[in-house]
Amino acid sequence: MTRLPLLFTPGPLTTRLETRRAMLNDWGSREPDFAALTAELRQRLLALAFGERSHVAIPLQGSGTFIVEAAVGTLTPPSGLLLVLANGAYGERMAEIARRIGRRVEVLRWPEHRPVDPADVERALADNPAVTHVGLIHCETTTGLLNPLEEIAAVVARQRRAFIVDAMSSLGALPIDLRTTPITALLASSNKCLHGVPGIGFALVEKAAIESAKGVAPSLSLDLHDQWRGFETNGQWRFTPPVQVVAALVEALRRLEAAGGPAARLAHYAANFRILSEGMARLGFRLYLDPAVQAPIIATFHAPAGGSFRFDWFYASLAARGFVIYPGKLTRTESFRIGCIGDLEPGDFQGLLGAVAEVMAEMDAGDGRVPSRAVRGG
Amino acid sequence: MTRLPLLFTPGPLTTRLETRRAMLNDWGSREPDFAALTAELRQRLLALAFGERSHVAIPLQGSGTFIVEAAVGTLTPPSGLLLVLANGAYGERMAEIARRIGRRVEVLRWPEHRPVDPADVERALADNPAVTHVGLIHCETTTGLLNPLEEIAAVVARQRRAFIVDAMSSLGALPIDLRTTPITALLASSNKCLHGVPGIGFALVEKAAIESAKGVAPSLSLDLHDQWRGFETNGQWRFTPPVQVVAALVEALRRLEAAGGPAARLAHYAANFRILSEGMARLGFRLYLDPAVQAPIIATFHAPAGGSFRFDWFYASLAARGFVIYPGKLTRTESFRIGCIGDLEPGDFQGLLGAVAEVMAEMDAGDGRVPSRAVRGG
Repeated sequence: MTRLPLLFTPGPLTTRLETRRAMLNDWGSREPDFAALTAELRQRLLALAFGERSHVAIPLQGSGTFIVEAAVGTLTPPSGLLLVLANGAYGERMAEIARRIGRRVEVLRWPEHRPVDPADVERALADNPAVTHVGLIHCETTTGLLNPLEEIAAVVARQRRAFIVDAMSSLGALPIDLRTTPITALLASSNKCLHGVPGIGFALVEKAAIESAKGVAPSLSLDLHDQWRGFETNGQWRFTPPVQVVAALVEALRRLEAAGGPAARLAHYAANFRILSEGMARLGFRLYLDPAVQAPIIATFHAPAGGSFRFDWFYASLAARGFVIYPGKLTRTESFRIGCIGDLEPGDFQGLLGAVAEVMAEMDAGDGRVPSRAVRGG
Repeated sequence: MTRLPLLFTPGPLTTRLETRRAMLNDWGSREPDFAALTAELRQRLLALAFGERSHVAIPLQGSGTFIVEAAVGTLTPPSGLLLVLANGAYGERMAEIARRIGRRVEVLRWPEHRPVDPADVERALADNPAVTHVGLIHCETTTGLLNPLEEIAAVVARQRRAFIVDAMSSLGALPIDLRTTPITALLASSNKCLHGVPGIGFALVEKAAIESAKGVAPSLSLDLHDQWRGFETNGQWRFTPPVQVVAALVEALRRLEAAGGPAARLAHYAANFRILSEGMARLGFRLYLDPAVQAPIIATFHAPAGGSFRFDWFYASLAARGFVIYPGKLTRTESFRIGCIGDLEPGDFQGLLGAVAEVMAEMDAGDGRVPSRAVRGG
């Protein structure tokens, strides 16, 4: 295998060489040809969720957390109250962001292995008319759990609240249709299911919501209204964009469309997930989540019972073989995670499974030495 | 010439192909080899300004504006008062940032063609004991004017205030020595004199100042104290970094050191600036600034008097020939700007001058048609 090391990680993840090669140019960020690239980016991002008629695409410099902070700060006024529906670390982070930027926030929690329950949400909203905005993580990267987006969106719309959805690790693969699912702002980043490199996030925001958000954000850099006005005024980013990252994302989006779009990507992930989960089951590893709530995005496995399993050794031994999994856990349970997204083929998962079998055999043989990392090629 | 188009712009600018080729890998952002790259980055950034003993380097996702907002928000408490010394658009922007994030701010202004006067600053600070922090733009990208950093730093230190310096378009070329110049926080970005690609900014912050800044920032994403604690705790970025942009910047910093460091880069810029300014003078263009305050970073020229000069035609005609200058002006005077930074050689400036001569001859001949842009190669 010549593509090693391979990343089975939450993003940055394994991208196509063609995507990275799109970064070999320089662009002046206020040149017409870069403005054309930005226009194509914004159009392609909207198309991912069928938002062309109702929403605008607002890309922003920074990581996924930056776009979540920008959306919460731009859309929730100081007089508002955000209710975060949380069943993992990223829900908690959205609430922490709101607190840090001085927004009122409450959190409705479920256990990490349980989906958000729309009936609970409906009761909470009916009981608390002060709530103006509801926040949800579509696919919780903590575990890989998929929350029931359509049902929750219907509840939030019925209760006439705004709805902010972090679709960081779902958009581009799991179906999201803004024509039929009422969502005020849908957030994601360049480097997960879209297979771009990290450096920008983006929000798809309802036109009426962004139009009425002037002067709300408690930030200049993270003001999505101003950012949107900048694009609309002259096609340019307000502040210097990471031009190569933009070019890579456009290349990745062209490739996504050419390969059949999000539906084809989901089928690809699902096939890879099946190879992984069935292979791991043969090696004695159990999935943490109920299959009914498991997205084929991230697989969380219980750590094996018994004394010989050491995660640091497991991780480093796999990495030394060129297979990089998530370096830590976010769940409260003893577990580890393997990402199924990125430019990975069935053969890559079979290679990973072979490496897992070898490492487990070594571990059972009692050689407790943690190997040093392989030197990276290239 | 095979390297066209060339960017004579404020950044993103012309980078070396080797710098862009450093982006051809994928990295897991929590892998040991990426942590090693981050550690090298932080060490090299400190070394640029001799800050190893006194300061810490805190890189941050986003553009230069993001790092300015992060530094103002993290270092200026709500009870503080920031005095911005402004003689251009970037000074005004620092003040706007402070207002937007709810910090008290006052602005002391000079005309765009005049440097900040240390005596004025000393009087203002003596008269206004409520001022806790002073903000300065070292080299104002509005015009290319170099403010007298050492003298102002001495005044601010004598008056016992904190000093935040935006060195966006100076660090890496113009000399800045943190051992002898008292600066609380020195700010810059990847894509100007360091010749990296855009996507990260960074702050070099005095240890005592960052240690005492816990919980001050009105932001999670832009909290430099938390960002610093993350690096110190496990060598990792808190939130997904643009891994390829980091790799490119490390490559650019290695190259900067190998080529003789900031002093050699300044000499290179100065030689290019001389070729440009003398050549433009022969073509009838006058520099906007007095040579005494002109940094060899950006050249601002008066637009020619008389009726035939049209900037849109001038810009587009140069771009069609592969020479991309600044697309607009920031000064109040009719002028245009040509950047002297980036991976540009004397021959590139001679090529630009030849193109300017051609375009001016065409313009004098009265052909007022604005050419369409050349199709970009590659």
